[in-house]
Amino acid sequence: MPKFKVSFAPSIRRLPSYLLLAKQAQDSGDEYISGTLIATELNLEPIQVRKDLSITGIIGKPKKGYPVSPLIAAIESYLNWDKRVDAIVVGAGNLGNALAGFPGFRQHGLHIIAGFDSNPDKAGSDIHGAPVYPMAQLYQKLNTMDVTIAILTVPSDFAQDVANELVSAGIDAIWNFTNVKLKVPANVVVQNEDLSSGYAMLSMKRRIRKAIIEGEIPSN
Amino acid sequence: MPKFKVSFAPSIRRLPSYLLLAKQAQDSGDEYISGTLIATELNLEPIQVRKDLSITGIIGKPKKGYPVSPLIAAIESYLNWDKRVDAIVVGAGNLGNALAGFPGFRQHGLHIIAGFDSNPDKAGSDIHGAPVYPMAQLYQKLNTMDVTIAILTVPSDFAQDVANELVSAGIDAIWNFTNVKLKVPANVVVQNEDLSSGYAMLSMKRRIRKAIIEGEIPSN
Repeated sequence: MPKFKVSFAPSIRRLPSYLLLAKQAQDSGDEYISGTLIATELNLEPIQVRKDLSITGIIGKPKKGYPVSPLIAAIESYLNWDKRVDAIVVGAGNLGNALAGFPGFRQHGLHIIAGFDSNPDKAGSDIHGAPVYPMAQLYQKLNTMDVTIAILTVPSDFAQDVANELVSAGIDAIWNFTNVKLKVPANVVVQNEDLSSGYAMLSMKRRIRKAIIEGEIPSN
Repeated sequence: MPKFKVSFAPSIRRLPSYLLLAKQAQDSGDEYISGTLIATELNLEPIQVRKDLSITGIIGKPKKGYPVSPLIAAIESYLNWDKRVDAIVVGAGNLGNALAGFPGFRQHGLHIIAGFDSNPDKAGSDIHGAPVYPMAQLYQKLNTMDVTIAILTVPSDFAQDVANELVSAGIDAIWNFTNVKLKVPANVVVQNEDLSSGYAMLSMKRRIRKAIIEGEIPSN
């Protein structure tokens, strides 16, 4: 059975897009944002937007839409993004570096405060301002930090061993950017981020377009 | 209405995981792989695995499972991953570099053959063996390449302008790693890869675990 199974997963995955639009509306000085506008911007049906947002508890006003500030607060509170959460990146290569510098994360309360790498030569360097330590110092450094999340970007061959080390060192949430299905104790939360899944979707869309162009399936 | 709407999207997203397991079985010399084993490995229900795989046309044998080589062929053919596809990375920063070096892509037929960057100083460098050209040479270089996909990793502020340039230069499939909802002509396929969506899922799993620990929701 899936552990910590998330209901309404597709809706949860869309919440960050709603949050981004709400913040853009706030920056523009708008008091309300309509569900129809959100739907148009995101290529969704208005009913879907209403259903998705209802899980956060926010209620729109007829003809006006959603009040912008409460909408932002509702999404951030629902996702626990209104509190600061500290994370480490394990594997300080290009991907680890890119994630450490991703501008959206800090806005969601996620602070990457250190990197770890098996290559001792990387110790003393930094990833977007966060110091990089050798893996050998994982236990010692984690003792001094209030870290709850490890972002795993090591090569796949090392993923399980490193995950074991992280769990031993007290990490109980792993954002897994490798394609390895990690074996972890029941209390450890894992979110797999498989780039091949996105590529499968892109490939299918290209296939569907080809079928439409060739008249194999209708275009509506 | 969503363009090129992909039916069974969650199933499509899982196909790469099935493919990986099938390839591992092939490497181990196995002739068959059972749906139950796949389900256990991926923390899914066996019925879900059967449903997902049925869309590729593969049929399992009672008691034996899926024949490994035909299973691999069925998934790769369904996703069009049995043919080589060339892509460029636009934005040759850390993320572009990481994607260019992602070992899984080449196995799926995706070859990143060049990078483009607005910083002319990056011209002459390479990302995992692919040459990096200045953006000013986009049209000229694309003329000499049979590129079908652009992987967009530029800063969000430039995403729409760069997407416009790509479309003008003949690109009709964009794998979008920015958080901008791109406006593109109807014939252009876009797959959005929003890292915030994955972080929303991780955040929800942590929230659900907390609720279980605090006895607010049952653990099964």
